[in-house]
Amino acid sequence: MDRPELDDELWSGIVAGDRRALARAISLCESARADHRLRAEALVARASAEPRLATTARIGLTGPAGVGKSTLIDTLGQHLLQAGHRPAVLAVDPSSRRTGGSLLGDQTRMPRLARGDAFVRPSPTRGHLGGAGAYTLEAAILCAAAGFEPVLIETVGVGQNETEIDDLVDLVVLLLQPGAGDEVQGMKRGLLEHVDVLVVAKADGPLLGVAEETRARFAGALRLLRGPTAPSVALVSAQEGTGIAELWQVIEAQLDERRQSGAFAERRARQRRAWFRNGLVAALTRAVDAPGGLRERWAHLEEAAAHGELSVPEAVRAVLEGLSWSPRV
Amino acid sequence: MDRPELDDELWSGIVAGDRRALARAISLCESARADHRLRAEALVARASAEPRLATTARIGLTGPAGVGKSTLIDTLGQHLLQAGHRPAVLAVDPSSRRTGGSLLGDQTRMPRLARGDAFVRPSPTRGHLGGAGAYTLEAAILCAAAGFEPVLIETVGVGQNETEIDDLVDLVVLLLQPGAGDEVQGMKRGLLEHVDVLVVAKADGPLLGVAEETRARFAGALRLLRGPTAPSVALVSAQEGTGIAELWQVIEAQLDERRQSGAFAERRARQRRAWFRNGLVAALTRAVDAPGGLRERWAHLEEAAAHGELSVPEAVRAVLEGLSWSPRV
Repeated sequence: MDRPELDDELWSGIVAGDRRALARAISLCESARADHRLRAEALVARASAEPRLATTARIGLTGPAGVGKSTLIDTLGQHLLQAGHRPAVLAVDPSSRRTGGSLLGDQTRMPRLARGDAFVRPSPTRGHLGGAGAYTLEAAILCAAAGFEPVLIETVGVGQNETEIDDLVDLVVLLLQPGAGDEVQGMKRGLLEHVDVLVVAKADGPLLGVAEETRARFAGALRLLRGPTAPSVALVSAQEGTGIAELWQVIEAQLDERRQSGAFAERRARQRRAWFRNGLVAALTRAVDAPGGLRERWAHLEEAAAHGELSVPEAVRAVLEGLSWSPRV
Repeated sequence: MDRPELDDELWSGIVAGDRRALARAISLCESARADHRLRAEALVARASAEPRLATTARIGLTGPAGVGKSTLIDTLGQHLLQAGHRPAVLAVDPSSRRTGGSLLGDQTRMPRLARGDAFVRPSPTRGHLGGAGAYTLEAAILCAAAGFEPVLIETVGVGQNETEIDDLVDLVVLLLQPGAGDEVQGMKRGLLEHVDVLVVAKADGPLLGVAEETRARFAGALRLLRGPTAPSVALVSAQEGTGIAELWQVIEAQLDERRQSGAFAERRARQRRAWFRNGLVAALTRAVDAPGGLRERWAHLEEAAAHGELSVPEAVRAVLEGLSWSPRV
């Protein structure tokens, strides 16, 4: 089996905060090519050892399509830049994937952020073994190694993959429309149970009143659902820039509290565990499909199954029974 | 590792064509319980050796939601019953899953079929390792062993999983609305390239003219896309019962041709190969998550990854490098 080797030049670029080097490294993570995977692995393994990683927050921003996630991220990112941060934005919204997910696409959606000293990374245009979560986590780790912080991760996440969000970020911000309600019915309850900060967007102009009602309604629902630890509900207007500084204060306060209580580190450990399992399944899936390696050894079973000499369940079982594991030194 | 053992009583019920035995066996396939999986495996392995399997056609019916797949299947199934067949219907439509996917639900959607000598199996209500394809294939094999034929498989399949359909059925029937066009833009081109029979539904009353136009348009597009081997486009009205007998004739003629050319057997072999790989990935995923077994052996690597002593990519690689395979006698 080939061993990953660290690309020293690329790594130097990353730790120096070079955005092109970072972008190239993330592309390696997203690639399906075996040699790219090896190079990506070496970089991510190295980046995992960076002390910066433990202090760089990963913040998930989720909500239904059209709620204005990109606009909020653009405004919040601008605020962070002014406060001396160098935020990174990773978009995993499948709707931006549909429109091509090009860099230009995401730069247009976040015009101010793309001009500043931030790092904006669009959605990859194709699926990937192990789900979007796997390489987004790798990308987030590389962003941290490059000194970008915080890492904002835009994701749809409503209804289906709240577990994936939990495995990816330190804190989940859910964005809702003024008047939201129906679409929340369609969300898995799990999302409302895991959300850390709830934001009602577009709280400006004629929608301000509705936004306030929506805030009150959700604050009540969250108190019922989660008692005294219920997250507060914030109002923001990306257009008028109101509520953005307050939103960041709420996020920072929550992160500080968790760092002090140890919950932050515990969650990271849980995430690494999930990543290990998901990564193992993805690696095994590649091993099953890759030419050479283990697959060659059980090729006769695949042939027997293809020709009907053995039933498929029997052939699969025969493979499993022949597998063994012992540590390599 | 536990070995699967054949449940002789359940198997006797299946080969005798008992619908309750068949339903119980399919439930075992859908179950996530390890002991259920073992029993299901033994039944499917046994059913895979039945000569009936090679002669029982599996027909996929696909098309956008709301196009009338259930109604067509109900009408076609009725026609098949009258012609002396005993059809089985497996529904893997996620939309029926959303409404609960209960047996009653599917019986209501196919009222005439549910009263006859057919076997109607609703969508399972939850996801499953290896995708819907895996256990639907197992269910289809059990249906064939129970003497039901043909096996009609209702699936959405538009836009995403045409590969899965190819791995599942012998022939793909695509159902379209009169006036269809826009939704076809959204389909992967792959589907139009793989479809074997195209049907314009609801060709009755005021929609008849539009249906004829749609037929002409698609017949033209298919000739452009696929040349002289382009499939013909049929018109049916489930409500008036017109076009159903002709549709079945077209399907049978295609199946006969493929049986004679050997294409039918070749496709089945390709399906068994895909099933082997998918089954192996699903089994390995279970092995990664299951307590005991291989996972215990590399538990120290998972712990090292969780505690950050080893990066996750390194831990995953260490597991892969320690895996070996040799045949068990």
